Amino acid sequence: MLIRKIDDMHVHLRQGEMLESVLPYTAMQCERALVMPNLMPPILNANDVINYRMQIMEVLSNTKGKFFAPLMTFKIVPTTSAAEIDGLKQAGAIAGKLYPDGVTTNSQGGVSDFKALFPVYKAMEECGMVLCLHGEMPNAFSLDRETEFLSVLKDVALNFPKLRIVLEHATTKDAIDCVKTLPANVACTLTVHHMYLTLDDVIGGALNPHAFCKPVAKRPKDRLAIIDAALSGNPKFFLGSDSAPHAISAKENACGAAGVYTAPVLVPALCQIFEDYGTITKLEPFTSQFAAEFYNLPLNQHSIEIVKEPWKVPEVCGTIKPFLAGQTLNWKVV
Amino acid sequence: MLIRKIDDMHVHLRQGEMLESVLPYTAMQCERALVMPNLMPPILNANDVINYRMQIMEVLSNTKGKFFAPLMTFKIVPTTSAAEIDGLKQAGAIAGKLYPDGVTTNSQGGVSDFKALFPVYKAMEECGMVLCLHGEMPNAFSLDRETEFLSVLKDVALNFPKLRIVLEHATTKDAIDCVKTLPANVACTLTVHHMYLTLDDVIGGALNPHAFCKPVAKRPKDRLAIIDAALSGNPKFFLGSDSAPHAISAKENACGAAGVYTAPVLVPALCQIFEDYGTITKLEPFTSQFAAEFYNLPLNQHSIEIVKEPWKVPEVCGTIKPFLAGQTLNWKVV
Repeated sequence: MLIRKIDDMHVHLRQGEMLESVLPYTAMQCERALVMPNLMPPILNANDVINYRMQIMEVLSNTKGKFFAPLMTFKIVPTTSAAEIDGLKQAGAIAGKLYPDGVTTNSQGGVSDFKALFPVYKAMEECGMVLCLHGEMPNAFSLDRETEFLSVLKDVALNFPKLRIVLEHATTKDAIDCVKTLPANVACTLTVHHMYLTLDDVIGGALNPHAFCKPVAKRPKDRLAIIDAALSGNPKFFLGSDSAPHAISAKENACGAAGVYTAPVLVPALCQIFEDYGTITKLEPFTSQFAAEFYNLPLNQHSIEIVKEPWKVPEVCGTIKPFLAGQTLNWKVV
Repeated sequence: MLIRKIDDMHVHLRQGEMLESVLPYTAMQCERALVMPNLMPPILNANDVINYRMQIMEVLSNTKGKFFAPLMTFKIVPTTSAAEIDGLKQAGAIAGKLYPDGVTTNSQGGVSDFKALFPVYKAMEECGMVLCLHGEMPNAFSLDRETEFLSVLKDVALNFPKLRIVLEHATTKDAIDCVKTLPANVACTLTVHHMYLTLDDVIGGALNPHAFCKPVAKRPKDRLAIIDAALSGNPKFFLGSDSAPHAISAKENACGAAGVYTAPVLVPALCQIFEDYGTITKLEPFTSQFAAEFYNLPLNQHSIEIVKEPWKVPEVCGTIKPFLAGQTLNWKVV
C-alpha cells in the first residue's frame, strides 16, 4: 500500500554524531520535517538558521533519503525582537518556537512573560510565519501545566486572529477540546508516543525512563482523546512526532532526560494505532495533508510503501533506544 | 530537648548485608519498629516469623541500639488460612500485612480478592492481631489506586468492627478524609517522605528515581493534607516511615525500584516539618504515643535527645542514598 510521504511537523534532529545517527530514519519516512531549534546553543537568529540548515543538508547528502527537506525554525526567547522576524524568514525559518521557561530539555531561560512578546507575534503574523507553542505553564504542578497554559493559547489566538498558531504535542483532553473550539488559525500537533503511553507507563510499575517525556503522558482518558483527534479527520490535528533522541546513558542515569525517540518507528507505530482504533485510510490526511494545508505548503509528491507484516522494532538504533524497542508491530515500511 | 524514643510502625529492614547496613539507623532512633514481611521469600508462617526475628536480633547484638525491639509481621497472601493465625501470634507476629497484587516491591502474587480473606480477618479480629493494608487497588490508574482502594478499607472496617486496621502510608487527601470518618478501629500511618514530596519531585523536572516510591507521591494538596493529619493530634494518625532501602544501582538503572530510604534522617526530617508547619511539641504524640495506644503496647521508656543545630545529611549511608542526601536540616539527633 502506497501512502504519500509524510510531514513530521515537530522533530529533534540534534547536531554532530547524533544528527548523523537520527536523520536517516526521518528522511526515509518523511518528505519534510519541522526541525526544532532548542540546541545548545539554540537557533536564535538568521545566521543560526542558515548554518543549522547547512549542517543538516551536509549530513543528508550522505544518507539514503533523497527527497527530504528540513523545515527550519528559530527559538523565541525573551530577548527576541520584532525587527528580527523578517530576516529570520528570509533565512528560511517558517516558524518560531516558544518554550516556556524550564518546562523541557534545553528550555532554561525560556519565556515566562507571554504578553511581552506581543510585538514579536505581530511581526510573525504580518509576514505569515507560524508560531509553535510548547504549551506548558512554568511553575504549575506537572499534571496541570498544559491545562493552565490554555489561557495563554486563547489569549494569543484571540489577539492575533491571522497568526497561525500550533499547540505542540497535546497530551490532555482539555487541550484537544480547547483547540477544537478555537478559530481555524489554531492547530495542534499530536505525537505517536502520546497515543501509546499514559503516566502509568512511566510510574505505574517500576520507574521507566524510556516512557518519560515532556509534557509527561497523562491519564487513559487523555490518551483516548488524542487518538480520537488524530482519527477525527479534523484538519486542526496533524502529526508532530516530537521524536527526541537521548543517548541511553542520559535516559538511564539518575537525571533521566525527557524525550521519546520515535523516528525509527514513526509510520509503523501510527499504522497500528489507526488500524486498532479506526481505519488505516484516515492515516494519510493526518500525516501528509493537514499540516501542508495549514502551513501553505504543496502536498508531498513522493510515496512510501507500507505493508501489513510483522516487524520487530530493533533494541537499539545507533546508540539510542527507540520507542517500542523489541516489540513486534503489525506494519512495516518497505 | 529529650523526646520519648519513637515507634516506627512500618519499616523495611531487609536481610543479610542490607539488614546490617540499615538496622543501626532505625535502632538508634526507634525503640520499636514494625518490620515488613515482603522479603524474597516472604514471611508467611510461624517459622518464618521466628527465623526472621532471630536474624534481626543477631544483627542487633552487634549494633549500638541497645533498646530496640522488632515488632514482627507476616504477609497475608491468597493462600493464608484462618487456622494459621493463632500460630502466627504465638510466634510473635502482632500484625498481618496485606499487599494487593503487584502494587509495590515484591508484591507479585498478592491479594486481588479481598473478600475471600474474610475468614482470615475474622481470626485476626478474634485474637487481637492488627491488619495492615497497603491501600492500592490493583490494575487501577496509578494516581487513582489509593482512592479506589478506600471502598475495600470501608468494607473490611465495617464488617469487622473489632478488628484493628491500619491503612499504611496514606498519600491522598481522600484517604486522610476517609480514615477520619471511619470508627476508632481504623488508623493510618504517615511517612516522612510523603510530607516532603509531590509527584513533581519525581517527574516535574528530570526524572528522579530517588523520589520514586509506592504509593507514588501525589499533588500539593495531598501533601498538605498529610502534614495536617500528622500535626492534628488525632490519634488515628501515627508514624510509619516505610523506609525502604534499595542499592543505588537498583534506583538508577532502567528498572528504577520504588522506595525511599528515610531511616537515617527520620527524626530530624520530622522535626523540620513539625516546626515549619506547626510546633515541635506535636511531634512526640505522633512518633511515640498514638501507635503504642492503638497497638496496646506500653509507652517506650527511653529517650533520644534532639537539638536545633544544622545537620548535613550524608550523601550515602552504607551503599544506599538516604532521603534528603546532601541537604542541610535544622535539627539533629545527638
